[in-house]
Amino acid sequence: MVENSPLDIEEIVRDSFDENETEQLAEKLDQLEPEEIAFALEAMPLEQRVGTWLTLEKEQQIAALTYMRVDARSNIFKQLETAQLHELVEEIDVDDLIELLDELPDAIYQYACSRLDQSEKRWLDQALTYDDEQCGRYADHDVLILSKNAKVRDAVRLFKKLTEDAEYQEALFVVDRTGRYVGLLQGIRLLGQPNHMPVVEFIDAEAPVVQGDMELDQGSDLVARSGYSALAVVDSEGKLLGRLSIGEALENVRRSLEGQFMHTAGLDEEEDLFAPIINSAKRRALWLGINLLTAFLAAWTIGLFEATLQQVVALAVLMPIVASMGGIAGSQTLTLIIRGLALGQITPQTYWTLMRKELGVGAINGVLWALVIAGITYLWFGDWIIATVISLAIVINICVAAFSGVVIPVWLEKMKIDPALSGSVILTTVTDVIGFFAFLGLGSLFLL
Amino acid sequence: MVENSPLDIEEIVRDSFDENETEQLAEKLDQLEPEEIAFALEAMPLEQRVGTWLTLEKEQQIAALTYMRVDARSNIFKQLETAQLHELVEEIDVDDLIELLDELPDAIYQYACSRLDQSEKRWLDQALTYDDEQCGRYADHDVLILSKNAKVRDAVRLFKKLTEDAEYQEALFVVDRTGRYVGLLQGIRLLGQPNHMPVVEFIDAEAPVVQGDMELDQGSDLVARSGYSALAVVDSEGKLLGRLSIGEALENVRRSLEGQFMHTAGLDEEEDLFAPIINSAKRRALWLGINLLTAFLAAWTIGLFEATLQQVVALAVLMPIVASMGGIAGSQTLTLIIRGLALGQITPQTYWTLMRKELGVGAINGVLWALVIAGITYLWFGDWIIATVISLAIVINICVAAFSGVVIPVWLEKMKIDPALSGSVILTTVTDVIGFFAFLGLGSLFLL
Repeated sequence: MVENSPLDIEEIVRDSFDENETEQLAEKLDQLEPEEIAFALEAMPLEQRVGTWLTLEKEQQIAALTYMRVDARSNIFKQLETAQLHELVEEIDVDDLIELLDELPDAIYQYACSRLDQSEKRWLDQALTYDDEQCGRYADHDVLILSKNAKVRDAVRLFKKLTEDAEYQEALFVVDRTGRYVGLLQGIRLLGQPNHMPVVEFIDAEAPVVQGDMELDQGSDLVARSGYSALAVVDSEGKLLGRLSIGEALENVRRSLEGQFMHTAGLDEEEDLFAPIINSAKRRALWLGINLLTAFLAAWTIGLFEATLQQVVALAVLMPIVASMGGIAGSQTLTLIIRGLALGQITPQTYWTLMRKELGVGAINGVLWALVIAGITYLWFGDWIIATVISLAIVINICVAAFSGVVIPVWLEKMKIDPALSGSVILTTVTDVIGFFAFLGLGSLFLL
Repeated sequence: MVENSPLDIEEIVRDSFDENETEQLAEKLDQLEPEEIAFALEAMPLEQRVGTWLTLEKEQQIAALTYMRVDARSNIFKQLETAQLHELVEEIDVDDLIELLDELPDAIYQYACSRLDQSEKRWLDQALTYDDEQCGRYADHDVLILSKNAKVRDAVRLFKKLTEDAEYQEALFVVDRTGRYVGLLQGIRLLGQPNHMPVVEFIDAEAPVVQGDMELDQGSDLVARSGYSALAVVDSEGKLLGRLSIGEALENVRRSLEGQFMHTAGLDEEEDLFAPIINSAKRRALWLGINLLTAFLAAWTIGLFEATLQQVVALAVLMPIVASMGGIAGSQTLTLIIRGLALGQITPQTYWTLMRKELGVGAINGVLWALVIAGITYLWFGDWIIATVISLAIVINICVAAFSGVVIPVWLEKMKIDPALSGSVILTTVTDVIGFFAFLGLGSLFLL
């Protein structure tokens, strides 16, 4: 029985800083899975990352790269000499090449292609007919394939060749003479079956199939729900392209949800923790610029009421409360709706039910907090008109926020714009502008 | 070959609204996996959800419930009569009971317990020694178990009993006489092996083990990285509690990342899209209240400078720009750090490297946007002192934001507070207060 040792990133990172620990580090890395190595490398600053990566054996180097985030990987490539890159890709597996090709310099990619054999080239061409969000692109070629006419003994021979570290290879795929997928066969179904029986007898008729042009998210969901540890990926003619395993499905689900989280701050899920400062600054600048536009829009709204503000400076003091409460209430609705959209759980049929519910929640919380804010404002400024004005503005803004929190993401989704990325900027613009306008407008009406 | 039919939630939800489609809907549901049914039920308003759920057979009813979000499930329970609940749990499986027990009314839970047999009761007690974030609680008892002395033929017999819809049961677990876990045995390793060989010969020595007191996230990671479709879960004495499958691991990863996303808006990952208005309002009110405190803190900061604002009303107009740019820059750093913390990729060794990098990014973007804002401000108000004041405030606030974006989540993590939940409220409080203070303070210095 093997003791399970949870991955100790902290220890590995510490060792990577210490030149006396190089050997010890190499030993530790040797015991890790490539995805664990990738994970540890991402947690290191560039210098240590490249240094540690270079100590790996070539096979591990490639495997680790394929598991790393695109940015983290590309930051390693940038540190390598052309000769090092050539050596790296000399005997690269076609599946790994497909994974890495977008970040490889063009000349290196060409070189790697020139080293592939005929069948690998065919695989590569096949993969490249799909874009990088489709299952066909990433179909794993490391599959057990058997002909339709094969017998149980052939299948057994195939399974027996599996090495100890084969992952999710508990099933093989049966194809006809033209390479068309016939069915999936789980190894355990053959236990105790006579050698001479045809394998087609044991094919699992229930196993679904992943189409090559399916979105990666959709294909991953299909694998996850199927209960099989891998499914066949086929092209439009039904030919077997490879397989999509539950391990990759899990990785895709993770990336996709991490993306949703990172996009809320205008970041990419591939963002490297230790990216060079100038690269990070460049990428984030855009987001700040977009935000600046909306901030000026809010400022312009306030500017419309300069005269009012000059006379009732309390309004300037209280302004941020109206905007902020609207922003928070709106982002609660927005977040709920974005999750719902991502899961496909928001349908035309229920759109208005949802809208009514969110408006109801907004109305209740709007009135509740408007009363509280009115009370505090009265205590602070001793003016019941200001208290009334702010409470009205709060109710208006929270209701508008609830409405926008439903409308904006649904509309963005229809326009094929990622609501996680743009939703909150648009929402805060709305709640800022409406909030300031309602508050200062009502203020001008009642207080001047 | 089965045509794969991606789950059409929209169609199912539409049917649930139409009383003439009841039969057709039942047929469609019958072809779905319980997790797909659960998924579709979550996408329905309460009335349709309960109505549709009631048309299911009892086994499907329970299975669907176990896959549903806690809130969505509990909203079904609330609609049921005591008699219906009794009937539901009458013959409930112990694994399902463990999943549902927190939402079941106490009397119903007691009744369900009284119906369990001896061994099931033992399982339940065992599970309840772990809390609801630990792997031991959810160890799946649906496992193939074999004694250490068993032969290949016994294993084959066990595998042959598996039904078509057994999920991730490609391996069995070998235990000694006292129930202590000895090892994992993959079915395919037995192919072509003589019947009389002892199974222990084929045990996979590499398979890691999940400890019962491991956090669910940690255990799920272990399963995902192991490459096995299920691992054994053992108690502190090494006794086999059950298994954790890759399917459940994927589900846990998904829930955990969804949680991270939902927490940024103060929502729970279990939040039901169609929760009753009053429940939702209550839950969200707390978050709005916390935000209100911080908003009043910002307002109080502004209040310190009432005299200045009265004289230079342009400051009131421009205030939100300073606060907003700081908030956005800070949330970018915060989001990156929260992801890093969640993945365990931020270590003491690299903390200062990271801080330097984020401050560098902040300084570059601070200066860049300060210049842009100074230009626009000058064009707008024709006053270069105001332009200087706002640009200084922007630089200060964006640098403070970068600093806080690193410090706050790391500190929260140390205090065992979820940074995804509280990070952004604390961060915006800091950027609001510092932003207003810097801007209005500098304004008072230079403009009065």
